Amino acid sequence: MKIAIVGAGSIRFSLQIIGDIAKTPELSGSLISMIDVHEERLNASYILAKKYVEEIGADLRFEKTKRLEEGIEGADFIINTALPFPEGHEDGFIKYDIVTQIGEKHGYYRGIDSQELNMVSTYTYVLISYYDLKLAIDIAKAMKKYAPSSWLLQTANPVFEITQLLNRLTDINVVGICHGFHGVYEVFNSLRLDPKEVDWQVAGVNHGIFLNRFLYRGKNAYPLLDEWIEKESQNWEPKNPWDLQMSPAVMDMYKFYGMLPIGDACRNGTWKYNYNLETKKKWYGKFGGIDNEIERPKFHEELRKGRKRMIEIAKEVEKDKSIKLMEIWPELFNKDKLSGEQHIHFIKSITGKGKSRLILNIPNRGTLSGIPDDVVVEVPVWVDETGIKPEKIEPDLTHRIKIFYLMPRILRMEWALEGFISKDIKVLEEILVRDPRTKSYEQVLAVLDEILTQPFNKELREYLNY
Amino acid sequence: MKIAIVGAGSIRFSLQIIGDIAKTPELSGSLISMIDVHEERLNASYILAKKYVEEIGADLRFEKTKRLEEGIEGADFIINTALPFPEGHEDGFIKYDIVTQIGEKHGYYRGIDSQELNMVSTYTYVLISYYDLKLAIDIAKAMKKYAPSSWLLQTANPVFEITQLLNRLTDINVVGICHGFHGVYEVFNSLRLDPKEVDWQVAGVNHGIFLNRFLYRGKNAYPLLDEWIEKESQNWEPKNPWDLQMSPAVMDMYKFYGMLPIGDACRNGTWKYNYNLETKKKWYGKFGGIDNEIERPKFHEELRKGRKRMIEIAKEVEKDKSIKLMEIWPELFNKDKLSGEQHIHFIKSITGKGKSRLILNIPNRGTLSGIPDDVVVEVPVWVDETGIKPEKIEPDLTHRIKIFYLMPRILRMEWALEGFISKDIKVLEEILVRDPRTKSYEQVLAVLDEILTQPFNKELREYLNY
Repeated sequence: MKIAIVGAGSIRFSLQIIGDIAKTPELSGSLISMIDVHEERLNASYILAKKYVEEIGADLRFEKTKRLEEGIEGADFIINTALPFPEGHEDGFIKYDIVTQIGEKHGYYRGIDSQELNMVSTYTYVLISYYDLKLAIDIAKAMKKYAPSSWLLQTANPVFEITQLLNRLTDINVVGICHGFHGVYEVFNSLRLDPKEVDWQVAGVNHGIFLNRFLYRGKNAYPLLDEWIEKESQNWEPKNPWDLQMSPAVMDMYKFYGMLPIGDACRNGTWKYNYNLETKKKWYGKFGGIDNEIERPKFHEELRKGRKRMIEIAKEVEKDKSIKLMEIWPELFNKDKLSGEQHIHFIKSITGKGKSRLILNIPNRGTLSGIPDDVVVEVPVWVDETGIKPEKIEPDLTHRIKIFYLMPRILRMEWALEGFISKDIKVLEEILVRDPRTKSYEQVLAVLDEILTQPFNKELREYLNY
Repeated sequence: MKIAIVGAGSIRFSLQIIGDIAKTPELSGSLISMIDVHEERLNASYILAKKYVEEIGADLRFEKTKRLEEGIEGADFIINTALPFPEGHEDGFIKYDIVTQIGEKHGYYRGIDSQELNMVSTYTYVLISYYDLKLAIDIAKAMKKYAPSSWLLQTANPVFEITQLLNRLTDINVVGICHGFHGVYEVFNSLRLDPKEVDWQVAGVNHGIFLNRFLYRGKNAYPLLDEWIEKESQNWEPKNPWDLQMSPAVMDMYKFYGMLPIGDACRNGTWKYNYNLETKKKWYGKFGGIDNEIERPKFHEELRKGRKRMIEIAKEVEKDKSIKLMEIWPELFNKDKLSGEQHIHFIKSITGKGKSRLILNIPNRGTLSGIPDDVVVEVPVWVDETGIKPEKIEPDLTHRIKIFYLMPRILRMEWALEGFISKDIKVLEEILVRDPRTKSYEQVLAVLDEILTQPFNKELREYLNY
């Protein structure tokens, strides 16, 4: 089996996935094709992956390339984890930070891409995620030619928009994969429930899912959450900026929507929780969550440091083959623990090596009532060699979730796709005209102009004929 | 046949409708039941209607009552034109003006009910149109008991929300009727087209319709509009505050949406055209349209003056039967001209006295693709004794109209209905949290509190358990 990873220079994620493959006997003998345009990172990733697999003692082969077409030729599965970015900067994060700063200068706190129900920093780039959507279309085109029966496992954000775009414009096999639903375990843990005894479902769209079914030992477990809110919520403190599943904002959303938002949906509320750092701290605890001017740049810095360390370790490994990765970085390089990512379960199951229950992004086709059939939803599914079968969603999401959360979020997706497909800057303007932070049409023109005339946005400028 | 008019104290509208009935031989012999809680206005309306019909020489009988149940008992048709308002004020307009002023004090230009895609002043009252929706439900209940096979012709605003609510919660016969589509004739007139040679359709939701079909002598007439924009639009000047069908705002919307908004849809753009009076003047011409701080109060004053004059005329008529209404007010009281309202055509056709093409508000059920089946849409229909049959909408509305205009507007309707049905003030808060003029949650709480604690809002306060 050939598994290609686009954006394999995203070292940490690649090594998690490759570790998962190595620990899965059913995938023994596979060829891993590592693809990245950034040579140094690709090389480091490649070296570490080979070394790690050697230490585990798995039977995997590797190849690496900067060329997409070459890397995916003949692949059975393609995992897209790439964060593309235009030339001239070290990584996509720096560019995000610059664009966010320009946005703030024009009155858009956290930048123009941070929008109601879409507050996850770095989720889109200038409203229509041009670079990400463009790459996905390129991958789909290459698949048609070089790996026509393969599956694309879309992992890079914006998962919702990209999976939707590919479903709408192409006929490739694509599924969106995200680990955000893991938030349910934080809930179970906070309520001291044995996860094995919980019957749960989540449903919605990516980064917008709610715990629709929540039974503990066969009984409705929401009263246990109500009890926790009454007795324990006042003692809640976030352990880190990402720890917000049990925050006041999320409990406030739960009270309004009637079901608990899960994972990244917790970050994707309205401006009510996000006007400024002070508001964020009130609703998300002392860090104010991860999507703010203090924590987000800190996190980017940590990622860069981690990347540098990885590159250094790779260099050391090249010099000294006796180094044991599993000794120097046991939390990442270990023998038994799977990463928690769903990719390998999906590959195993769809190729007939065991049925799995996964949370995937697939076209709705009646799974969620009141949501258009062609919209990509995130729901529990069963995967085996016959395909992907969504579970019956029971109970249904509340009417409020649909009219106040999902449909407005779905419209944002539609707006982004319309901008990308029509290449019309008027669509970007219109999205901003409707932004609560906009005070005048002139402000819209000014912020777009300053962002689009940045040197690194040459390609976007040309695309939009700006 | 018995035709009941709820809100018959709305003198001008009642007299138009009654005049139409009188001029329609097929409806000769009908009983007109005039219903209004405001005794003085009801009496004036009654006196003038009887006198007018006598002058025309039509065979109509009249009754009047303050009691809804009594008035609609045994009716075949009920026309709801009432603008209900709580005790303590002369009319609904004064209350609107007070609520708008409170809104403005808290940073909401033109009040909290003026919202993106819903800019028509006085269209809703405190986001969920409580008083209007409540009256409609009362009418529906009374119909079930006293006139179970009758038709409700819903004319009072919010036509969209009320028609939707009644379709969703009751099984009465209801159809929403509005004359806004007449804007097409302003377009034909501006382009100097013979209306008889135009093949046209409009479609959308009430106060949100677009000219989807526009053929002149069999050929696409949009190029004629493009030519007008290029050559003549710079000379356009509004003749009065209502004259905005050919305004720069509407042409800007046309360019973005790909089809021309018609009638009240022209007023229902985004804040881009409406931030303040200066912006409104730029986009709607020298008056800034009708929905602003200068023209709207002036218009209310004119309505009040007109009402006073009507009441005075009624008193004179009572004293001196020799007065001829058709002489003293020929533009309203005439012998031949129909008002242009659709009510009488509907009544004639549905009772088998001639087929008509009308523009009505009915459940979508597949007429507009991409719009949920149960949503009430405004479309061309053919009416005869077998019922209401929508025309095939051809060509379809553009994708942009659906994702940027209709669906966001439909969601506002859903939000209003959710607030009305759940009686939850949190819904009103949530609607405001998403308003572009809101800067903080505290602002939301403050504006709602000041409006809801007004003495005249006692009933709304109790309804919301505030």
